[in-house]
Amino acid sequence: MSQRKTIALDIMSGDCGPHSRIRAAQETLKLHPGLHLILVGEAHLIREVLGAAETDRITIIQAEQVVTMDDRPSQALRRKQDSSMWRAVEQVAMGMSQACVSAGNTGALMAMGRHLLKTLPGIDRPALVGPVPSASGQTLLLDLGANIDCSAEQLHQFAVLGSLMMSEVYEVSCPRVGLLNVGEEEAKGSEKVRLAQQLLGDNDELNYFGFVEGDDLFSCAVDVVVCDGFPGNVALKSSEGAARYVMRQLQGKQLQGDLKLNLWHRMLAWVARPLLRRFVESLDPGRFNGATLLGLQGVVVKSHGSADEQQFLAAINQAVRAVEQNAVHRINDRLESML
Amino acid sequence: MSQRKTIALDIMSGDCGPHSRIRAAQETLKLHPGLHLILVGEAHLIREVLGAAETDRITIIQAEQVVTMDDRPSQALRRKQDSSMWRAVEQVAMGMSQACVSAGNTGALMAMGRHLLKTLPGIDRPALVGPVPSASGQTLLLDLGANIDCSAEQLHQFAVLGSLMMSEVYEVSCPRVGLLNVGEEEAKGSEKVRLAQQLLGDNDELNYFGFVEGDDLFSCAVDVVVCDGFPGNVALKSSEGAARYVMRQLQGKQLQGDLKLNLWHRMLAWVARPLLRRFVESLDPGRFNGATLLGLQGVVVKSHGSADEQQFLAAINQAVRAVEQNAVHRINDRLESML
Repeated sequence: MSQRKTIALDIMSGDCGPHSRIRAAQETLKLHPGLHLILVGEAHLIREVLGAAETDRITIIQAEQVVTMDDRPSQALRRKQDSSMWRAVEQVAMGMSQACVSAGNTGALMAMGRHLLKTLPGIDRPALVGPVPSASGQTLLLDLGANIDCSAEQLHQFAVLGSLMMSEVYEVSCPRVGLLNVGEEEAKGSEKVRLAQQLLGDNDELNYFGFVEGDDLFSCAVDVVVCDGFPGNVALKSSEGAARYVMRQLQGKQLQGDLKLNLWHRMLAWVARPLLRRFVESLDPGRFNGATLLGLQGVVVKSHGSADEQQFLAAINQAVRAVEQNAVHRINDRLESML
Repeated sequence: MSQRKTIALDIMSGDCGPHSRIRAAQETLKLHPGLHLILVGEAHLIREVLGAAETDRITIIQAEQVVTMDDRPSQALRRKQDSSMWRAVEQVAMGMSQACVSAGNTGALMAMGRHLLKTLPGIDRPALVGPVPSASGQTLLLDLGANIDCSAEQLHQFAVLGSLMMSEVYEVSCPRVGLLNVGEEEAKGSEKVRLAQQLLGDNDELNYFGFVEGDDLFSCAVDVVVCDGFPGNVALKSSEGAARYVMRQLQGKQLQGDLKLNLWHRMLAWVARPLLRRFVESLDPGRFNGATLLGLQGVVVKSHGSADEQQFLAAINQAVRAVEQNAVHRINDRLESML
């Protein structure tokens, strides 16, 4: 395994084209002087964009294929083994880099991550995880949409992974873990959620808080919220939609009702815009900061398909942090005792 | 069936005590001069609170029991047949009133509604539905948490019910119906959601738009959003949580990041508070305005357990509107041709 810190970037996947990915890579090298990057994609194009800026801190790897957003994960796994995504994950599997970042198809990235890197012992499937802002700083939410329908056992695994990430990466000791439900009473929710509640409650190594509801994501009730990918994704996107709605209303219309916008409200809109935009951006880790595929034997960060240069850079920074903190090894070391 | 408009109120259920319910009833009579009310609960207590204000527009019905929030629906159905909730729904079943309102246990209310009123032909279970604010006015969301795990067929029934409510009660012609999912691509989501997509797409009577995501709740992409009760409830509560978080930040802290609150921001907080509060309140129909159990042979409105006088009054007004618009009959008349 290479001793220097290296991150592999899938330059081709996503909607924004390779140019913005390459510019983000160049920016990364400025920010992290000791870091090396592997850029995976159309080599001649990458060289052309890099031009005179090419340095010995960049390795270019040719990939003939690109995974599209329409590719089914199983098809991508079989037929796109020479894609930029596959080759980038492969670099981690071969020990040539400690992390990879892709803005491509989540399902395909998940499938390749599982196939090439394998999950950590005791983990069936990796969870897509990211932080959302809360009164006490941030709450880790998992799964964000990569696992549509999990079993109670998988929810338990996610709880353990989330708790370990919160303590090992975010340095919160004894993080409180909540299970997302439609009410806080024992009898609420599906059978699966009640079964998961039992598993979490029985695990003495977990600081299990109990059921939480959607609004607890942004309160400081818990540090980690665990749920299926379906409601997890809905929670993030509807919160983002709500914040955008408020923003639009403040900008020129009126909130449902009858308050006329006067001068005060116009000033308000002007001042509130950056605050609200910041909130909206902090709400969607997948889109704005990169979400992590947690539970693999390697760091895989997923940037949003439509991520621009700054957003792809934020995802790379996420990967750098995980590598610097040796997150996978530290989580793996404590995993057995917690499962 | 009585010709005069009458609404039965469950005075005992919920957390706020009968006094606030009775005051809301008195307020209702002032607002709707032709309306009669049936107050169901502890008769001597109701009489005591009404005092000299008792009129011939109020009928009092004694009920010995109260359904609690911890009662399981099946138990409440068997053992609480002399509860204020049961007796209130029974008034609708017997044709003594055209609607009932309760702030009690949602599951028990649903069970009693199904048992005493029956569902409309072709409908397996009623959906809990309410409006959320959107760029174009409002979006109907169903289910809000009463049906945790629906089949694809039930999602189809909800789509038809929601579409009919939007056209018959909210007077939107040809309402666009969206199916909540974690992405807009065909291959996204669970098998159930994809099956429901097929059923909705095949129904020529529905103006089916396709998959929508959480943020579309507040855009004007569609008029009706259909989903399981679990993500529906999560969507509402997390949006509410997000709006509350923004409110708290504006009030005295700073949004994640580094913007210091200066005088501008304090003024901003002062001006934004009522706007944001209004938004938060419009977000949770269950809590603030009353949500409707749609698909029963009668109007049943669910107010939130912690609803205060004003919120219970809003739920009663919801019931009055449904009765005035003859909603159940109009929906029933068009149901067969749409299923």
